[in-house]
Amino acid sequence: MYRTHTCGELRMADVGKDVTLSGWVQISRDMGGLTFVDLRDRYGITQLVFDMEANAALCETARKLGREFVVTASGKVNERSSKNPNRDTGDIEIIVDALEVLNAAKTPPFTIEEDTDGGDDIRMQYRYLDLRRGPLQKNIIFRSKLAIETRKYLDENGFIEVETPCLIKSTPEGARDFVVPSRMNPGQFYALPQSPQTFKQILMVAGYDKYFQIVKCFRDEDLRADRQPEFTQIDCEMAFVTRDQVLATFEGLTKHVFKTLKNIELADFPKMEYDEAMQRYGSDKPDVRFDMEFVEMNAFAQGKGFSVFDNSELVVGICAKGIADKYSNKDMKLLTEWMQRPQIGAKGLVYVKFMEDGSIKSTVGKFFDDETLRSWASHFGAEKGDVIFALSGEVDKTRKQLNELRLEMGTRLGLRDNTVFAPLWVINFPLLEWDEESERFHAMHHPFTAPKKVDEQKMLSGDHETLKNLKADAYDLVINGVEIGGGSIRIHDRELQSKNFDLLGFTKEEAEAQFGFLLGAFEYGAPPHGGIAFGFDRLCAVLNGVNSIRDFIAFPKNNQGRDMMIDAPSPVDNEQLDELNLALNLKENV
Amino acid sequence: MYRTHTCGELRMADVGKDVTLSGWVQISRDMGGLTFVDLRDRYGITQLVFDMEANAALCETARKLGREFVVTASGKVNERSSKNPNRDTGDIEIIVDALEVLNAAKTPPFTIEEDTDGGDDIRMQYRYLDLRRGPLQKNIIFRSKLAIETRKYLDENGFIEVETPCLIKSTPEGARDFVVPSRMNPGQFYALPQSPQTFKQILMVAGYDKYFQIVKCFRDEDLRADRQPEFTQIDCEMAFVTRDQVLATFEGLTKHVFKTLKNIELADFPKMEYDEAMQRYGSDKPDVRFDMEFVEMNAFAQGKGFSVFDNSELVVGICAKGIADKYSNKDMKLLTEWMQRPQIGAKGLVYVKFMEDGSIKSTVGKFFDDETLRSWASHFGAEKGDVIFALSGEVDKTRKQLNELRLEMGTRLGLRDNTVFAPLWVINFPLLEWDEESERFHAMHHPFTAPKKVDEQKMLSGDHETLKNLKADAYDLVINGVEIGGGSIRIHDRELQSKNFDLLGFTKEEAEAQFGFLLGAFEYGAPPHGGIAFGFDRLCAVLNGVNSIRDFIAFPKNNQGRDMMIDAPSPVDNEQLDELNLALNLKENV
Repeated sequence: MYRTHTCGELRMADVGKDVTLSGWVQISRDMGGLTFVDLRDRYGITQLVFDMEANAALCETARKLGREFVVTASGKVNERSSKNPNRDTGDIEIIVDALEVLNAAKTPPFTIEEDTDGGDDIRMQYRYLDLRRGPLQKNIIFRSKLAIETRKYLDENGFIEVETPCLIKSTPEGARDFVVPSRMNPGQFYALPQSPQTFKQILMVAGYDKYFQIVKCFRDEDLRADRQPEFTQIDCEMAFVTRDQVLATFEGLTKHVFKTLKNIELADFPKMEYDEAMQRYGSDKPDVRFDMEFVEMNAFAQGKGFSVFDNSELVVGICAKGIADKYSNKDMKLLTEWMQRPQIGAKGLVYVKFMEDGSIKSTVGKFFDDETLRSWASHFGAEKGDVIFALSGEVDKTRKQLNELRLEMGTRLGLRDNTVFAPLWVINFPLLEWDEESERFHAMHHPFTAPKKVDEQKMLSGDHETLKNLKADAYDLVINGVEIGGGSIRIHDRELQSKNFDLLGFTKEEAEAQFGFLLGAFEYGAPPHGGIAFGFDRLCAVLNGVNSIRDFIAFPKNNQGRDMMIDAPSPVDNEQLDELNLALNLKENV
Repeated sequence: MYRTHTCGELRMADVGKDVTLSGWVQISRDMGGLTFVDLRDRYGITQLVFDMEANAALCETARKLGREFVVTASGKVNERSSKNPNRDTGDIEIIVDALEVLNAAKTPPFTIEEDTDGGDDIRMQYRYLDLRRGPLQKNIIFRSKLAIETRKYLDENGFIEVETPCLIKSTPEGARDFVVPSRMNPGQFYALPQSPQTFKQILMVAGYDKYFQIVKCFRDEDLRADRQPEFTQIDCEMAFVTRDQVLATFEGLTKHVFKTLKNIELADFPKMEYDEAMQRYGSDKPDVRFDMEFVEMNAFAQGKGFSVFDNSELVVGICAKGIADKYSNKDMKLLTEWMQRPQIGAKGLVYVKFMEDGSIKSTVGKFFDDETLRSWASHFGAEKGDVIFALSGEVDKTRKQLNELRLEMGTRLGLRDNTVFAPLWVINFPLLEWDEESERFHAMHHPFTAPKKVDEQKMLSGDHETLKNLKADAYDLVINGVEIGGGSIRIHDRELQSKNFDLLGFTKEEAEAQFGFLLGAFEYGAPPHGGIAFGFDRLCAVLNGVNSIRDFIAFPKNNQGRDMMIDAPSPVDNEQLDELNLALNLKENV
C-alpha cells in the first residue's frame, strides 16, 4: 500500500490519524532540529515534518532528499502551529515516523514551479517534467473534463458516438494527406483522415441520425505557430434537420460547457450574415467583444479631389476612442509601418485626429477642410480625443487590412478582455470562390456543402456571375474572433453533388474514383442531413482565454512536426521499406 | 421541420395528435382502398395509412413508393383496428394527409431485414445499407453505450482521459508498425502506435496518477479472420498502486459494464496462477464455464509397456461426459483426424469409452486391461457413458493440443452457454520466453513489465535457467476463454529496465535510440506504476456472446486490409510520392 490518502486531501478533521502518502519532493527545508518536506502529487501538497530529536536517522534521510525524489511517508496528522492559508492542506502536517525512497531523481533541467525558467525546446524535450507543472496539469485535466461534458451533453441529446476509420483513402482535394503505405497491397496507400466527413455522411445514409465523435484528424501542412499535424475535433452530423436545429443543438453544447466548466451563463448567440460580417468587421470571424465597426466612406469621402480615395473601390474606416492626444506623430508613423508590413500589405494609413483642444490633425488636410473632417466625425460617432483611421483600395483586400488594424487597436485599447466571451454564428457563406490563378471554383467550405435551397436551381443552370454569388447553407461558430468550428447542410442528391464536383473541376472519372461510394450511397435513400465540427484543441484554449493550443495537448509536435521528447519522426530500416515496396528518393540539397 | 416525432415514439396516448414523421420505407402494401406503408428510422417502425377515397392522388403517390425511399409524412395519429403487439408503436397508425418524397432509392442489392440474403463481400461494399439492418444497428449503439459507461466508471474513479499522439516513432520490437513518411523531415517516418504504452508510462512519471484513454491502435499484421489493422483499446495506467489495486479497479469496471449494459451481476473474479491454468486447462485463457479439467496420467499410465506413453514427457487426459454410446467408431476416427490437422498437430488420440452396458472400448486395450482402465475412471471421475481422451508428448505441445480438444468437446456438449459469463484473472505469467530459433529471450508481455518483487535480484544476476523461471507481475482478464485484456506492474527503475533490454537482446545503443526518453524519464523521479488495456472491440463481442468483432465496428476492413466500401488503400500520384521523397519499388510477381 503506497498511500492511504493523496497529498491534497487531509484537513483538520483528520488530525490524529495515521496516514501514508506518496509523491514527489517539491522542496526540503532543514531548520536545524526540524526538517520540513513539501510532498506533491496532482491533488496537492502536504507538509511532512521530521524531528531530529525524535528520530535522528530518519531526519538525516529526509535531509538528503533532493527535488523530485519519489517517496512514501507514514506518520500522524498534526495541527500546524503556523498555518498556511494559501494551501488546502495548510492547516495540517504529517509527523513522519517512516520514510521510503521509491526512486531518486537527478536535478531537473528547469524548475518545476508555476512559472518555469525552462526554454521552449528543453521543456518539449523533457515534456514529462514540464507536465508536472501546475498550469499544464490544470490544462490537461481541463481538457479531460471538457471531453466528459461534451459527451454527456451529446449523449443526453440522443447522439451516438461512432468510431470512423483512421486508415482511409487519399484524395487530392483540400489540404495534403498523410499517407500510409500498405504492405499487403503493394504500391497502394491509405491516408489518415483530415476529417471523418464522408463517413459521417455515410452514417446518415445508414440511418444513424445523430452521430458524434471526438476524433483525431491529420493534415500534412506547413506548420504555423499554432497548428499541429494531428488535432482533435468534436465531429457531428444529424439527419432530418434544418440549419437552425443544428445551430440550436451546438449552441446548447457550447452553453453547457461554459456553464459546467467555467460557471458562465452565455446569452443566446446572435446570427450574422457572412456579407454583413465582412462589411461591418472585414472578417468572417469578427471579435464582437468590442464595437469599432467599419464605416464605409465612399459616399462622403470620394469626389473631393483626393485621387487615392477617388480611384478606390472602397474607402472604409474605424474610430479608435481616446487616443488622439496620446499617439504622437512617431506612434502614427510606427502604426503606419506596421500596416505596411507584407503580412498586412496596406499602401498607407489615413488618419484624422480629433484633439482634446478641438483642433484636427490629419494626413489628408490638403484635400479635406476641417469642416468636412468634422462631418466625418458624425458618421463615425467620433468625439474629441478620438482618431479615425481610413484605408482604401479593392473591397476584399481593404477590409482584410482594416480588420487587422481594428484587432490591433482593440488589443491596445484593452477592449479584448479574456474574461469576456462573445459568441456568434456567422451564416450564409458563399458556396464557391473563384480562383483567378487556376481559373476554377473552389469550395468555400467543402465539396459536400449544399447551396441555400433558393439557390439550387441557379446552381444547376446559372452562368458564371450567378455561380459566384451562390450562397451556401454553411455556418461558423465564432467566439472572441476565433473560429471554434463550422459546418453546413449537405447535399443529399446525387445530381446536385455531381454538378458540384463538375463546378469544382473534377472530371466524371475523378469524382467517381474518389467519391463514388458517396455518390452511390445517395442513390439508395439518402436523408437530408447536416453537421458541424468544433476544433477541440481550440475550444480548450478559447475557454481559458488563451491563444495557443499547444499547452492543451499532452504531447505536441514542434513547428517542424517533430516530437522532441521521443525524437520522431526517425529513419526506418531498409528491410522495412523493402517490405513496403518503397525506396527512398532523397533530393540533393537545393 | 422534418419531424415532430421519431418512428419509434408514438403510443395510444398520442391518438388524435397531428404529427410529422420522416424515415425510410420498409415496405408498402396496397390493399385496394387502403395503402399501408411501414416507415422506419433507427428508433422504430410506424404504420402510415393512405385512403383511396379520402385522397386518391396522395394514395397513388404512396403506392409508387419503393423500398428504402426517404419520405416525410404528416397526418393524425389513429388507434389501429388490428393491433400489432410485436411492435412498440403497434397500437397506432398515422392517417396521412401530406407526403413528400425526400429522396428516391434504387432497389437495394440485398434485403434490409434482421436476416439478410447478402453475402459478405456485397455487404461490405454497401456497408451503408448493411448498417441499416437491426442487428448491426444494435451492435453499433451498444458500442457507443459501452464507451459511455466505461468513461463514466473511470471518471467516477478519478481517472483522467489524456490523448496520446498517433504520429510516433517506429520500433522494430513486437508486431510490425504502420509507418507514415514525413514530408517535412525527408527520409524519416512516423509510426502509428501499436499501443500508447510508453506515453502512458511517461504520464505516470509526469504525475498524472490515473490515466485512461479509449484509443485507436494499429498493427500491420497478416490478418486472421478476427483481426483488424486498426482496433480500439481501453488503455489505463495508475501510479502508486499494487497489482491487486489495479485488478480491483478493472474488475469493478467489468462488473459495472455487465450490470449497466446487460443487467448481469457478476460475482467476484477468481485469480488463477498462470502455471495452474496451464496445468488444469492447457491454456492461459481457460474457458471456465465448464469443468472437463485436465488429469495428468504419468503416475498411473506410464510404465505399463505402452511405449508412446512411456516415452512422453506428459500423458494427460480429459473426460467427456455421456458420449460413449453416441460416438461411433467413425465419429472417433473423424475426431482423431480433426486433432491431427496441422492447425493442432496431434500424432494420435487415445480414448477409453465406458459404455452404458458396463463394457469398455479403447484404443489402448492391448496395453491396459479393463481393470486398469476402470481405475483410470476414478482419477477422472468418469462414469458409465463417459469417454476419457488422452494425449501424450512434450508438455507444452500436448497441453495446447488437449486444450483444443477440450474446447471442441465443450462446444459439442453444449457446455459453452453464451448467456453464462465466467471471468477470471490469470496472474503471475513468466517474465521471459526463451526462443530456441533466435536463441534469445522474448518478453512474454512486453519489455516494460516488472518481474515479481521477489525475482528482482534473480533477474539482475541469475543464470540462464533462473531467468527462464522468472515470474512477472503480469495479469490477464479472461472471460469465457477470451482474453479481454491484460497488463502488468511496470519497471520504474532505470537499471532494471536496462537489464531487461539487455536480456531481450537490445544493444545499449538500440535501447537508447528507441527508448532513451523513457530511460531518461526514469532518472527524474519515476513512481511505481502499473496498468492494463482491454480490447474494446473484443469486449463488445464477448458481452454479446459472439466471437466476431467485425460487426461491432462500423467500417471494418476485410482480410486483405481493404475497406471495400471506399476502395482503400489505393495508388497515389507520383507527385505525392515525390514530395515525400519516396519511390515505388515493386517486386516482380513471384
